[in-house]
Amino acid sequence: MTYCVGLLVNAGMVLLSDTRTNAGLDNIATYRKMFVFEDPGERVITILTAGSLSVTQTTIARLKDAVRGPDVDAETSIMLAPTLLRVAEIIGNTLAAVRADVDEKLVAMGQGVSASMIVAGQRRGGEMRMFLIYPEGNFIEATEDTPFLQIGEHKYGKPILDRVVTPATSLADAQKAVLLSMDSTLRSNLSVGMPLDLAVIERDACRVTLRRRIEAGDPGFRAMSDAWSKALRDGFAQITL
Amino acid sequence: MTYCVGLLVNAGMVLLSDTRTNAGLDNIATYRKMFVFEDPGERVITILTAGSLSVTQTTIARLKDAVRGPDVDAETSIMLAPTLLRVAEIIGNTLAAVRADVDEKLVAMGQGVSASMIVAGQRRGGEMRMFLIYPEGNFIEATEDTPFLQIGEHKYGKPILDRVVTPATSLADAQKAVLLSMDSTLRSNLSVGMPLDLAVIERDACRVTLRRRIEAGDPGFRAMSDAWSKALRDGFAQITL
Repeated sequence: MTYCVGLLVNAGMVLLSDTRTNAGLDNIATYRKMFVFEDPGERVITILTAGSLSVTQTTIARLKDAVRGPDVDAETSIMLAPTLLRVAEIIGNTLAAVRADVDEKLVAMGQGVSASMIVAGQRRGGEMRMFLIYPEGNFIEATEDTPFLQIGEHKYGKPILDRVVTPATSLADAQKAVLLSMDSTLRSNLSVGMPLDLAVIERDACRVTLRRRIEAGDPGFRAMSDAWSKALRDGFAQITL
Repeated sequence: MTYCVGLLVNAGMVLLSDTRTNAGLDNIATYRKMFVFEDPGERVITILTAGSLSVTQTTIARLKDAVRGPDVDAETSIMLAPTLLRVAEIIGNTLAAVRADVDEKLVAMGQGVSASMIVAGQRRGGEMRMFLIYPEGNFIEATEDTPFLQIGEHKYGKPILDRVVTPATSLADAQKAVLLSMDSTLRSNLSVGMPLDLAVIERDACRVTLRRRIEAGDPGFRAMSDAWSKALRDGFAQITL
């Protein structure tokens, strides 16, 4: 499985993904699930992926081809599309087409595949936007009321987000929130694993302003995780029944 | 959906269930999901249920019939069975039989049903035991390493249990832990709802020593929920990135 989360706050966007993939519990591997398309200052698009690796890798490969290829046009290149909404549509259509292709191959096995994505981006002169793309290619968008989107194993890490995240949350607090949300997920579910990929996109920068890979045993992440455990235990101890 | 949780600690057992059932999001009702079979001082068995209401109600009804009926015997009555292990087997077999019956009726609709249960009990002279019964009738047991069992929407409320519950946890702390675990679930998932049913079974009492229904708006529960929110926010604020 996977856990990816994106926060859209007034000051910018924060994205975090794990890297664990598994084909059965006895076949575990590490794959990047965060992909950045960037023309610094002009446009930034970050994609987080969850679901069948054969679907997400092919989808990303097709999106890259459409950006780089000889016949680049605004109909298929997410770096030329006129709006972020159109970017989400291109990604949704690509994802749905790849998923249908792979599904067809697997139908003989009585199996199906699924994948979903979080797309966060901004183009110069436009608004920051963040979408959750469903396996069928349709999508929803983060709003002021619900300023975060999650894919994969989202339940363990949702309570902390429900409690602390609002559009007014600072970028520093937004990073803390996604890291603690991931920490809860890592502790409770083996199918989500380190290392982590973190990206911060400041409002109107139109580029990734901070990008960091957090390895297993990272002292900063461990210190935060320990401090959070202590805060939870102390808080728990202080509450009266 | 449902969220039910049981803790087995050295001092006793604590059980908590919600009461929301739904047949689709537009058809929500309140049903008790905690059932107590008790011969105070001799034997106590508490059952928590999750899953298809038609399965769980029929299963509980059959178990009650077997306890009360004219042909009561230790083969079918959970109040006469020689061991708690045998109690779990009777409940598992009854659940599996009812589920298979209902499944057969629904096969024409291309649908299936499922249900699971937590069974916690003690008989005089025996150990406290707690089981999670799967839809197929097999079961697992709570142990020192994993002193809690959950059914239904278990993911939201698992991080707090993973962090604070050990066999040495007091009964007061065990009650706090299940209530806060439920609180996280209630906040993040609409399909779990108040009122709640709480039961405490002290070690060797062989009866329910505390039983409480917590209604929506219960001031004690609300105060605890607010205090926990505050503790989380304060803890969050103190952590440095």
